[in-house]
Amino acid sequence: MRILSGVFEGQTTGTPISLLIENTDQRSKDYGDIAQTYRPGHADLTYDQKYGIRDYRGGGRSSARETASRVAAGAVARRILGDDIKIRGALVQLGPHKIDRTRWDWEQVEKNPFFCPDAAVVPQWEDYLAGIRKDGLSIGAVIEVIAENVPAGLGAPIYGKLDSDLAAALMSINAVKGVEIGDGFASAALTGVENADPLSMKDGKVVFGANHAGGILGGISSGQPIVARFAVKPTSSMLAPVPSVTRDGQEKDVITKGRHDPCVGIRAVPVGEAMMACVLADHHLRHRGQIG
Amino acid sequence: MRILSGVFEGQTTGTPISLLIENTDQRSKDYGDIAQTYRPGHADLTYDQKYGIRDYRGGGRSSARETASRVAAGAVARRILGDDIKIRGALVQLGPHKIDRTRWDWEQVEKNPFFCPDAAVVPQWEDYLAGIRKDGLSIGAVIEVIAENVPAGLGAPIYGKLDSDLAAALMSINAVKGVEIGDGFASAALTGVENADPLSMKDGKVVFGANHAGGILGGISSGQPIVARFAVKPTSSMLAPVPSVTRDGQEKDVITKGRHDPCVGIRAVPVGEAMMACVLADHHLRHRGQIG
Amino acid sequence: MRILSGVFEGQTTGTPISLLIENTDQRSKDYGDIAQTYRPGHADLTYDQKYGIRDYRGGGRSSARETASRVAAGAVARRILGDDIKIRGALVQLGPHKIDRTRWDWEQVEKNPFFCPDAAVVPQWEDYLAGIRKDGLSIGAVIEVIAENVPAGLGAPIYGKLDSDLAAALMSINAVKGVEIGDGFASAALTGVENADPLSMKDGKVVFGANHAGGILGGISSGQPIVARFAVKPTSSMLAPVPSVTRDGQEKDVITKGRHDPCVGIRAVPVGEAMMACVLADHHLRHRGQIG
Amino acid sequence: MRILSGVFEGQTTGTPISLLIENTDQRSKDYGDIAQTYRPGHADLTYDQKYGIRDYRGGGRSSARETASRVAAGAVARRILGDDIKIRGALVQLGPHKIDRTRWDWEQVEKNPFFCPDAAVVPQWEDYLAGIRKDGLSIGAVIEVIAENVPAGLGAPIYGKLDSDLAAALMSINAVKGVEIGDGFASAALTGVENADPLSMKDGKVVFGANHAGGILGGISSGQPIVARFAVKPTSSMLAPVPSVTRDGQEKDVITKGRHDPCVGIRAVPVGEAMMACVLADHHLRHRGQIG
Repeated sequence: MRILSGVFEGQTTGTPISLLIENTDQRSKDYGDIAQTYRPGHADLTYDQKYGIRDYRGGGRSSARETASRVAAGAVARRILGDDIKIRGALVQLGPHKIDRTRWDWEQVEKNPFFCPDAAVVPQWEDYLAGIRKDGLSIGAVIEVIAENVPAGLGAPIYGKLDSDLAAALMSINAVKGVEIGDGFASAALTGVENADPLSMKDGKVVFGANHAGGILGGISSGQPIVARFAVKPTSSMLAPVPSVTRDGQEKDVITKGRHDPCVGIRAVPVGEAMMACVLADHHLRHRGQIG
Repeated sequence: MRILSGVFEGQTTGTPISLLIENTDQRSKDYGDIAQTYRPGHADLTYDQKYGIRDYRGGGRSSARETASRVAAGAVARRILGDDIKIRGALVQLGPHKIDRTRWDWEQVEKNPFFCPDAAVVPQWEDYLAGIRKDGLSIGAVIEVIAENVPAGLGAPIYGKLDSDLAAALMSINAVKGVEIGDGFASAALTGVENADPLSMKDGKVVFGANHAGGILGGISSGQPIVARFAVKPTSSMLAPVPSVTRDGQEKDVITKGRHDPCVGIRAVPVGEAMMACVLADHHLRHRGQIG
Repeated sequence: MRILSGVFEGQTTGTPISLLIENTDQRSKDYGDIAQTYRPGHADLTYDQKYGIRDYRGGGRSSARETASRVAAGAVARRILGDDIKIRGALVQLGPHKIDRTRWDWEQVEKNPFFCPDAAVVPQWEDYLAGIRKDGLSIGAVIEVIAENVPAGLGAPIYGKLDSDLAAALMSINAVKGVEIGDGFASAALTGVENADPLSMKDGKVVFGANHAGGILGGISSGQPIVARFAVKPTSSMLAPVPSVTRDGQEKDVITKGRHDPCVGIRAVPVGEAMMACVLADHHLRHRGQIG
Repeated sequence: MRILSGVFEGQTTGTPISLLIENTDQRSKDYGDIAQTYRPGHADLTYDQKYGIRDYRGGGRSSARETASRVAAGAVARRILGDDIKIRGALVQLGPHKIDRTRWDWEQVEKNPFFCPDAAVVPQWEDYLAGIRKDGLSIGAVIEVIAENVPAGLGAPIYGKLDSDLAAALMSINAVKGVEIGDGFASAALTGVENADPLSMKDGKVVFGANHAGGILGGISSGQPIVARFAVKPTSSMLAPVPSVTRDGQEKDVITKGRHDPCVGIRAVPVGEAMMACVLADHHLRHRGQIG
């Protein structure tokens, strides 16, 4: 990665920071088979529908490699936010297998290749993923990202809601099909009393009895941890064949060779952290602009 | 509602269309009890944290009344999109009670007060909601919005993804805590083959064998129906008491009188349709700009 | 004028401030003669060319009445900037007649109907304008706006240059055809030494020996007074006839009755001040966001 | 220059086109003398005032080298606009010496190093500039840019006025201190009749008898040639000494060695053309989006 602008002698200069990551290991031959065929569930088709041109190389805008730039940007965003704000992500579901949240241990996240906070479920996930890989399949996942020590006040009531911007940022990650804040879809089944985060006073400060809201009320951070989850679908790039069509209208099964993970959701953990960092850094600056 | 600008003799003039809806039935006395107390789960607290001022009137930016302007804007957006594009919403879950999707009938949606497409579940919902109301409680819901006949090509690969903008728009509706496109969170549990929408040729056109993707691939519409769902939490404005604190730091239970629905999710159905219309109209114009 | 939102009990609430000024004295009959004919030099023609619809009423987007909203917004912007920053405008040229800058006296600006800082030239301007009015003509003008005590640092090196935004804001005022910062076009004829604003130290601070730059260097305010000028063309709405054509392609001279000033530039003085205030307030907030 | 993205096999792909121009001949030693001293009239001072950091290298955001990227972007913009729209610039004033507009000949522009359309004035300019150079001075200039065959309808009545965006774009070029459209500042001295562009019919089309407006009425292009001028101040980088101060508060004359043109305005001709192209391309796309 090269820093093209914005840094001089170890300090930012106020100029936009421009980062360049070259895609050096793209092997065009890997894509020979799919150059004329659309991968079902992939952007191959819609790009061609929109622009009328087929750029079949995998290294571009539709590849999860694009997310490397998000992670790089997230590293800058974290420096803007400072060390107090801690942003961490974890895989909470692999395919149909969820973690047991009572066993959540952040230290475990760095000790297994799944970013899994539940050590006990890791062996099960290993077996499961080995089977998926052996069958030439792919599988989805759910990632949770938590930002702690975010000050109250980030966001705005209608335009620029923090949860709205967070939803946009997370949904913009490749293969993401769902986003939740706090209790998310589960809150639909709760009564107002069950979903309430009761307030009380402690040492002269307002404290919360729960965090169903995931740290955001009315589009603005409350000072509680910000909790977001997003669902990643199984990648459409896999060895198992799927019925498809070619560019010139012939029916043909598609098989995708090349370097493709059976679960792209695992690599999405740092990407989700990065998007959280970018959104918070953006709102931090906007808040400082408006409020001072 | 008044049209302040942009329309002359029944036609748009090219000037921004400005609509004004006066909030005529606000009764300030209803809010007397909560003028000094924060409703847990409500933006009362975060607005005060951010701006340092308490505007306790309910008619403003934190009230679901704000969504009236969204519905009005959605009506304009539908005219931009034209009659071919059909946007319809329905309530698919009330509290813990989901519809049976095999009984989905769009005609039923206009025949019951729930916008429910499953006639058989309506009596159950009526009983359930009567109980919630009697107990002074509130309850959440899930809404599904489907846009049919949307042309392929709306959206963009990275900045301006259609699903990202849709997620932002739906998450920006009051009380929304989750957004899904297509299979959403369920896709996390699927293999790549189960989640694939196979392609084949029919009458010289590409057709899809399923719509797990909800009509969006790589941020761009595919020509399939666009399917989105969003979860609405139970409103924090209810008669049942919740522990809270006052502005000057006293602990005090909060009870919210005034005109509050036990399930704001029901009224969110046309709001979700409107946001879908606004996002599609925006992308329709942007697409026409880029592609012509 | 009504305040529609953003203010409660005399304080801003953080919500966008929405102001509504009704155009109450529009007399449609005044426009009867020009409903089908284009006024040369007026936006009549280009609006029709762009939108294909003729909204011949004068009270809208092409009328200088639109600038009332700019002045209202400028009043809010001044409150954001605070009392230290002083923004004042003056008419420095009426038709071909310029002021003598050695006689500049701000106190005179409020004592004559021209916002003229040179008392000695006022009688000449009165005679000249009476002649223009008698002949059914109109005439142009040049306005200068100066902002004092603007802190150094507002603006940005490439995107968001302060002078670029100021040029856009002033050029957007109806009938403006030219914008200058500092010495403006005169600087083209100067050598680098003549145009330099030498620096020296005084009481431990950097001071400037001149202000050819008009307070902006490299897109960023230097702490010196910000000096901008803009030229207003003569209005195309006048009694004197000009050859024109009708909507259906007939040649016809145009005469504009109705309430039209012979020199709209005079009224542009507070408008220019307001645009300066809006641009500075915007950059004040952006600067605070970036730098803190 | 490298194309980093957006082009595949000679065609644009719909992805943003990213161009990279490396600054390969920057010689840091040239800047040794000014690393601690502010050049009067230069952004040295204001960048330091704003960001509190001194990046003394000349190759960055404050160097006219930055305009190379504008010219590159302009080349892309011209491709969007198509071959019919012809954008050409010329130097119309060098220091105090103006061209004789009656001798304007576009073919001359490419035949002399000044981009001067008046062949007769070139020898005078050569002598004048040689003297400036010999004295270690610099001098300003005025550039005129004309866009022909621009269709009527580009721009918008209030937000997004074509002249406003053009003013912003031209004023954003390094060292520009003034911008005019059409007759510009001269129009202030004209009566409404003198300034009018009379309309008549010819072969069933509306034609104009003059172009005082410079092709823009009410913020929208009229179909006439778009005429803009901008003034470039003399560069502050020159051999002649100017009183200044150092970063640590010492008074010291500044002399700028290194590669600096005595008249940067000459090189600004293609930059002005490029900015015109970028603004027109942007409005072309926006117009197509809104109107279709």
